[in-house]
Amino acid sequence: MRHDELDEVYCSVAQTWAVIGERWTMLLIREAFLGVRRYEDFRRRLGVSRNLLSDRLRVLVEQDVLERRLYCEHPERHEYRLTEKGLALYPILVALGAWGDRYKVSEPPITYTHTACGLECHPWLTCDRCGEPVDPRQIVAHPAPDAFERVPEKVGR
Amino acid sequence: MRHDELDEVYCSVAQTWAVIGERWTMLLIREAFLGVRRYEDFRRRLGVSRNLLSDRLRVLVEQDVLERRLYCEHPERHEYRLTEKGLALYPILVALGAWGDRYKVSEPPITYTHTACGLECHPWLTCDRCGEPVDPRQIVAHPAPDAFERVPEKVGR
Repeated sequence: MRHDELDEVYCSVAQTWAVIGERWTMLLIREAFLGVRRYEDFRRRLGVSRNLLSDRLRVLVEQDVLERRLYCEHPERHEYRLTEKGLALYPILVALGAWGDRYKVSEPPITYTHTACGLECHPWLTCDRCGEPVDPRQIVAHPAPDAFERVPEKVGR
Repeated sequence: MRHDELDEVYCSVAQTWAVIGERWTMLLIREAFLGVRRYEDFRRRLGVSRNLLSDRLRVLVEQDVLERRLYCEHPERHEYRLTEKGLALYPILVALGAWGDRYKVSEPPITYTHTACGLECHPWLTCDRCGEPVDPRQIVAHPAPDAFERVPEKVGR
């Protein structure tokens, strides 16, 4: 089956990619998780053009990943905050960072503390049923019979 | 700091994105995890052009994510197999799929069984120290002092 656009593929990976896959979008989301909320702060930290930043922010607001919220009335100023749907992107961010830490940089640029236990933490994937770390060689995928032929309905924004 | 290219950013997320962030690359990796190894099978299942597929495969081989291996001498035929570095992309794939399952499709196109326990499994992120599920609001990030100014050395292929 031929697809021209990722969001035409009935695949959860492709559908996610259609939301966050544009260049720089994932770094913008990284900044949001690091606490950045304001347009000028995103721009300064990412070093991207206004056009690009405005476009990416608009898409993420449309997709309900970021919420645009008024924080000052005179002059009118908005900030961008992660929604619940945006916060749910965290495992993707962690997984991207962990792979880069391991294979692409000489030392991790960022380390993490888990406040629930107080320790430096490297989040990892475990099975929600038995709690053991997940090895891809121990996972069997069961595609729905028509998974590769279906055209996705539009779900979510 | 202004960057023109993602691989100039000293950030593990950006460095990973520079390897897998091209359009369709992550779907190609998804197919590899589903057991696809041959050029024509990738092409048929993804429905992409030969130019695009050849380019993506070349980059992934250069990056040591896929290994190009001779499986038939007459005629000469190669297949593409995930390396250890490629297998280590699995958490990214799982995280992308899980977000799409939750927010972008009406029912998951693929379900998973964990052969270690035999149960249908939804892998999730847990803290490697205390074993509890990770909530991003319970993670504190500690960027290295120069993390946002450094230019990355070239590490890995």
